[in-house]
Amino acid sequence: MRLVVVGGVAAGTKAASRARRVDPGMEITVYQEEPEPSISECGLPYLLSGVVRRRDQLVARTPEKFAEQGIEVKVRHRVEGIHPNTKTLTVRDTTTGDAFEDRYDRLVVATGARAVLPSIPGSDLDGIFPIRFLTDTDRIMAYVEDRSPQRALVVGGGYIGLEVAENLCRMGMKVSLVEGEDRVALAYGPEVSRRVAAELEANGVDIFTGERVEGFVGDGRVRTVSFGGTECEAELVILGVGIRPNVELAQDAGAEVGTTGALRVDRRMRTAIPDVWAAGDCVETTNLVGGRPDWAPLGDTANQMGRVAGTNAASPAGEDTLEFPGVLGTGIFKAFDLGVGKTGLSEEEAADAGFETVSADVEARDRAGYYPGAGKVFLKLIADAKTGRLLGAEAAGSGADKLIDVCATALWGRLSYPDLVDIDLAYSPPYGPALSPVIQAATILSGKFDRAREGVRVTE
Amino acid sequence: MRLVVVGGVAAGTKAASRARRVDPGMEITVYQEEPEPSISECGLPYLLSGVVRRRDQLVARTPEKFAEQGIEVKVRHRVEGIHPNTKTLTVRDTTTGDAFEDRYDRLVVATGARAVLPSIPGSDLDGIFPIRFLTDTDRIMAYVEDRSPQRALVVGGGYIGLEVAENLCRMGMKVSLVEGEDRVALAYGPEVSRRVAAELEANGVDIFTGERVEGFVGDGRVRTVSFGGTECEAELVILGVGIRPNVELAQDAGAEVGTTGALRVDRRMRTAIPDVWAAGDCVETTNLVGGRPDWAPLGDTANQMGRVAGTNAASPAGEDTLEFPGVLGTGIFKAFDLGVGKTGLSEEEAADAGFETVSADVEARDRAGYYPGAGKVFLKLIADAKTGRLLGAEAAGSGADKLIDVCATALWGRLSYPDLVDIDLAYSPPYGPALSPVIQAATILSGKFDRAREGVRVTE
Repeated sequence: MRLVVVGGVAAGTKAASRARRVDPGMEITVYQEEPEPSISECGLPYLLSGVVRRRDQLVARTPEKFAEQGIEVKVRHRVEGIHPNTKTLTVRDTTTGDAFEDRYDRLVVATGARAVLPSIPGSDLDGIFPIRFLTDTDRIMAYVEDRSPQRALVVGGGYIGLEVAENLCRMGMKVSLVEGEDRVALAYGPEVSRRVAAELEANGVDIFTGERVEGFVGDGRVRTVSFGGTECEAELVILGVGIRPNVELAQDAGAEVGTTGALRVDRRMRTAIPDVWAAGDCVETTNLVGGRPDWAPLGDTANQMGRVAGTNAASPAGEDTLEFPGVLGTGIFKAFDLGVGKTGLSEEEAADAGFETVSADVEARDRAGYYPGAGKVFLKLIADAKTGRLLGAEAAGSGADKLIDVCATALWGRLSYPDLVDIDLAYSPPYGPALSPVIQAATILSGKFDRAREGVRVTE
Repeated sequence: MRLVVVGGVAAGTKAASRARRVDPGMEITVYQEEPEPSISECGLPYLLSGVVRRRDQLVARTPEKFAEQGIEVKVRHRVEGIHPNTKTLTVRDTTTGDAFEDRYDRLVVATGARAVLPSIPGSDLDGIFPIRFLTDTDRIMAYVEDRSPQRALVVGGGYIGLEVAENLCRMGMKVSLVEGEDRVALAYGPEVSRRVAAELEANGVDIFTGERVEGFVGDGRVRTVSFGGTECEAELVILGVGIRPNVELAQDAGAEVGTTGALRVDRRMRTAIPDVWAAGDCVETTNLVGGRPDWAPLGDTANQMGRVAGTNAASPAGEDTLEFPGVLGTGIFKAFDLGVGKTGLSEEEAADAGFETVSADVEARDRAGYYPGAGKVFLKLIADAKTGRLLGAEAAGSGADKLIDVCATALWGRLSYPDLVDIDLAYSPPYGPALSPVIQAATILSGKFDRAREGVRVTE
């Protein structure tokens, strides 16, 4: 039995490793276009500034390590065609330029996602980079080494743009950030967006929202960026405007693309093509809160999907029954000293999904008030106005990661706000206030629902 | 309508505050034997060493503050009798020594718990103290000021004893700790106990387990402590052998005492006496994992119970329907730099409760391996071998508080191990490894259950 995995980052390598464990006798090959497999892409912004000190720390496992496990990883190989009728593949060795045929019994597609490159005049100037692969950071770092840019501009105010802005500041550059929408961190409510913007500005980042970059100007390499009638000097530009799933290879072979634009798979991670599974950033899944298709291109989710795809792809026919249930839309990022996370739906996303919502927020401490070093954290809970079911949470500040993980677990268990009023969380002065911010916010929600029962309309 | 609350620490003051909010016209009096109400008892060990700098930081609210809210708090007043037939109380003003009668329409008993004082020869020597009230720390600190003890001994290796040992070390004393059982932190499994002992020893604490103190020797004040055939020098001894609920007042009035030795109440926090509720460290509740009575004398739980008791006590007759569901047995403490927490049942407790268990543990990092400053954390998950339901979790190390809160929320939602394999927690390099230690441990559990399905016995 021969398993081929297309793509060797998180989902692909996880699928290969799981398959090896399920079936020790399976022949397994992973094709990876980039020169290294198993890259921790989430670490890339931190490599720029030296927070992550060495490049090789972001290569979780080398091809040699995979070989020890009986997994052949062929880097600089691009799969250009999947032929389900003959169960063959067309593969190109990008070093030699030669193409060849390979065969598979089982196939896992883990083609990931690519950076969106906006079509802005001047985009081909030197000094303008996306940041998606380790090779992108190689290019950025070589450019910085060579040109010592003093002013940088980041396009896009999402996770990546915000993380990159922080790390460029750490490198000593004067950083501007341009976001087309009216606020940064758009997946969050306005309270969190305001806090993120304030944190960036306090650290010297100039933020321009509601502005679209109209052009890059320079003499071979970029010198200024124009938007909103102004010209902003910048010798380095990082494009963080988003990513798009790589679906074309599987789609051409007969896999379906869903409403999110990513590959459609069932809970077993099967595509519509027999013996072909898919996992990671190239597939869509279900948002378990809203019950609708969702695209969640994140490293942890890719790992979890890869585990399911790899297990099933290595199981005997008919026994490929492991399921991946879906996601909540949980995410977190750091903006300088501010931890910012969410799970479930924002109020805007909940409204889109047809919910009527009630929310409550608190500004709490991350430990007992009298215990030294207490930091502040903002938490917002969003509940279904009809049923009281928790729909989402957002947090910003010290210990936001803990609060979001608690709320994610509550969403996973489909808990409602009254469950969170009495929940038995861990309290000791160094670790939280006597009542967790989750309990505090749930208690406020509870008061709103009580008033609603008395005939006061609670929807805000 | 007149509400009297007996006891003014966490549960009592919370009940009074909630009652005020529910019924703005209610007359509310709180009697408190100690000279101050609203003490944050969990902070006492940290006051000793100056981690908490000022005594008044542990007095959450003064009687004057309560008065502003329309709550009369009478300190140095001991309630000596409850007379349900006449709905009256006998109260003693401990300053004047005079007793008087008061009346109530509704009563909340929040009499708390007291330190267990072991009957060991020499216990009446100077320099031997329990640590339960703010006045205990006053006495300890005055003694330290006066006598400058160089060697201290702590009796008891539970939460309080361990926290006190740390803080005495911070005061520059050489500290020994004696525990009668064969390990410290007995509520935990042996893996955690070992880590706690190692942390204490690394910080210079001498630990003696399996030893019972046989006597204190001294000339007016303590000089040595004898156990196990040896004499250990100590000019200061702190007794941390446990606490016992103050049930006598309510019991004499007809309230029932449960199997744990604490007052029995229903989910509405009602005692068997009409119009008398009880809350906090003096009552027992239900452990929702094992389904049995449990005593959980902790500040956060007392707050939550006080909220329910106060709300119901202030509600119109027949509308006192708010319920407190019970606890999980969640707890956390800090031993020097080691955070140590648990939720649900330990393996031993689960066996006692009639469960057959399977467990899995991991030693994980608290952030991505390549992100600087990563600490280590141990996590153990315990599941029901028959159903896979999560029964408990223990953690020790960096970020233990987050992992325990996640597991507590999972227990609250009655999740099983497969739910935790795919759970969508928040990942970003500064906040965790790509797969949370919870997911890692659940995945190991999953493998054990898989082998069980193949006929391999999984119980360990």
